[in-house]
Amino acid sequence: MYSSNLISVKDALNIVESVKIVINKEEIPLEEANTRVLAEDIEVLIDVPPFDRSAMDGYAIIAEDTSNVSPSNPLYLEIIDEIGAGTESKCTLSPGKAIRISTGAPMPSGSNAVIMPEDTELISNKIKIKRIIPQNKDIAFKGEDLKKGEVILKEGQILGPHHLSVIASSGYNKVKVFRKPKIAVIITGNELVEPTTDLKPGKIVNSNKFAMKGLVEDSLAVSHILHCADDLDKMIEELKDCTQKYDVVITTGGTAISKGDVVADAVNSLGEVLIHGISIKPGKPFGFGIINDKPIFMLSGYPVAVAVQFDIFARNYILKMQNINKEFDLIKCIAGEDIKSAHGKCNIIRSKLENNIVYPIRTKSGINKSIVMSNCYIFVDEDTEIIKKGEECNILKYSSFRVFE
Amino acid sequence: MYSSNLISVKDALNIVESVKIVINKEEIPLEEANTRVLAEDIEVLIDVPPFDRSAMDGYAIIAEDTSNVSPSNPLYLEIIDEIGAGTESKCTLSPGKAIRISTGAPMPSGSNAVIMPEDTELISNKIKIKRIIPQNKDIAFKGEDLKKGEVILKEGQILGPHHLSVIASSGYNKVKVFRKPKIAVIITGNELVEPTTDLKPGKIVNSNKFAMKGLVEDSLAVSHILHCADDLDKMIEELKDCTQKYDVVITTGGTAISKGDVVADAVNSLGEVLIHGISIKPGKPFGFGIINDKPIFMLSGYPVAVAVQFDIFARNYILKMQNINKEFDLIKCIAGEDIKSAHGKCNIIRSKLENNIVYPIRTKSGINKSIVMSNCYIFVDEDTEIIKKGEECNILKYSSFRVFE
Repeated sequence: MYSSNLISVKDALNIVESVKIVINKEEIPLEEANTRVLAEDIEVLIDVPPFDRSAMDGYAIIAEDTSNVSPSNPLYLEIIDEIGAGTESKCTLSPGKAIRISTGAPMPSGSNAVIMPEDTELISNKIKIKRIIPQNKDIAFKGEDLKKGEVILKEGQILGPHHLSVIASSGYNKVKVFRKPKIAVIITGNELVEPTTDLKPGKIVNSNKFAMKGLVEDSLAVSHILHCADDLDKMIEELKDCTQKYDVVITTGGTAISKGDVVADAVNSLGEVLIHGISIKPGKPFGFGIINDKPIFMLSGYPVAVAVQFDIFARNYILKMQNINKEFDLIKCIAGEDIKSAHGKCNIIRSKLENNIVYPIRTKSGINKSIVMSNCYIFVDEDTEIIKKGEECNILKYSSFRVFE
Repeated sequence: MYSSNLISVKDALNIVESVKIVINKEEIPLEEANTRVLAEDIEVLIDVPPFDRSAMDGYAIIAEDTSNVSPSNPLYLEIIDEIGAGTESKCTLSPGKAIRISTGAPMPSGSNAVIMPEDTELISNKIKIKRIIPQNKDIAFKGEDLKKGEVILKEGQILGPHHLSVIASSGYNKVKVFRKPKIAVIITGNELVEPTTDLKPGKIVNSNKFAMKGLVEDSLAVSHILHCADDLDKMIEELKDCTQKYDVVITTGGTAISKGDVVADAVNSLGEVLIHGISIKPGKPFGFGIINDKPIFMLSGYPVAVAVQFDIFARNYILKMQNINKEFDLIKCIAGEDIKSAHGKCNIIRSKLENNIVYPIRTKSGINKSIVMSNCYIFVDEDTEIIKKGEECNILKYSSFRVFE
């Protein structure tokens, strides 16, 4: 049997983190890899550029031909070929000759510089040159961007558009990334119905399913949302099934501590309840357990508590399954009002930060719109009963939850 | 005929912004609306909670019954019914009675407070109470979270998980959002092939298509990527087709200013070239035009120039089509080295910001990996030739391009 002693947030985080995190990899087409997390080092497979190439539209020449050239002593070079991008010239350049060349085209054999049209005058099939052109001018050399064998990106890199570009250039059309965890979300509550303006007596809208789907998506994972009645046998069936098919199970509702509530009882009957009840406000009834080696996060039914519990206990676990290691980024700012806090509990207060001053959103705990009216939490630890207006306090900005920075 | 005079970045931005931005709306299922932009005000359709309900598991009572209660003068109330979540009681509470009630269940008629089990003692079918319970204790009142008729979210709001939850509670299962713009990306270049380690002579990997797909996705739009040979007739066909089917066309490659290059010529033959050539480094050959009222962004072939041109000219336009108004968030920091700049051009230098000191990534312009080695641009304006080590400079962090903050 499990006990329901309230434990501290710190102890609860230690327990959650102690449960083995399973990380899986998969290979996907490179074009689908934007925002995914790299699960391998990328070793460059081919030199980039793969050949010495022109960095300009112009004429490939032999630089030494221009060594005595000046406005009063111009040089005339005969144009003997033209190389467009994607083609190459069969000609070898000899002194007195030039080959018209496009940006990116391979330098022809014998050439060692490119001269821009602006520096030339075209006279029938010849170009007139009035200045000295140094060797290697406007050539991009083989391997100067990416060198074959070089490791250009490391495992754990979150991939953006330009990473994909570099991986493609390195010779890959597939890439190994961390698999998105598959999260089953079981919403409990006989009172919950789909959004409607025609509510039957006692019923309310199942708003948690929308929040949970978004929260899982924002954690870069994939959600499967279920609704289960407040019934022990049905809950046991769902948990059995979900712990076989998914990597993580999250439940909402049915975690009251004062009575035997269905979710914790069901988890207990199939596996082990490791946490049930935290010294936190809001979010006290949070539970955590294991069934078939799969972690079960048991959240409250109240949306405000769901938000806090997900933000503090679940999100970073799910990110770590993708090799993304986020820490809580607590920052200091100034209290805009006196902030009272329940002693002996970690108080997490929905608040609005404006110009480094933070104001608590003062509503009852059931006021869900307070979440969208706020942009941060104030964290007040167990030993603090009041933070006075003008004093420093610790806040956690909602924007710090974002994976991409 | 269009001219190819270089214009300033500012003038170019003014021209781009002057082209009519078409914004479309669509209605989608609420569950798909995470990260979308709201295209209507949300007026609450039903009171939330829809009835007075218990905020706790406990007993619904008549507060006045407890008015003379103390440890030495306890009160005994008879339990006459039980209300689970999602149900309601047919009973009306009269003095001396209590009804067991679950969190969220409707308050029974006649009751006006909830007492927690912790404050009671259960003796067969009665509860013993030793303290005074005030009126309205632990009741959540009808409409106290969301009031019918209240406007709770405004058009333009970027929707996150908790916005969806509040919209659901307000009675909506669909929501009107701005349609994701459909962007055709036409990659030109005969030299481009799919990623491979077996490059034929003169060929290079088409890396731009991967970057462009990601850049469009990061702008919350939908991309359709095409590859077109460097051929005027083919380019004209593609542009005709794409400007009928898509909202915006972006091209890469074929925009050289020194010669008649296919993209600008094709745009000119079908519509109007408004910009061709900017005083910017890198990215000078940027072009912009209109065909069939659709904007055409003509980017370079070089990935480094593509990045700068997209970041400066295209991204904010695409976001504005979704009613997201982003400004360039230039911030000041300290130059870690002397930074030389080409006079008369806006220099946009890929750089690395570390602890408020910024260091340019010193590579040739064709070095694509410099994009993934950097995390910001230094902006050096046309009139500045050098920024000395230790002086202030303006930077634009790549992270500031992110829509979600």
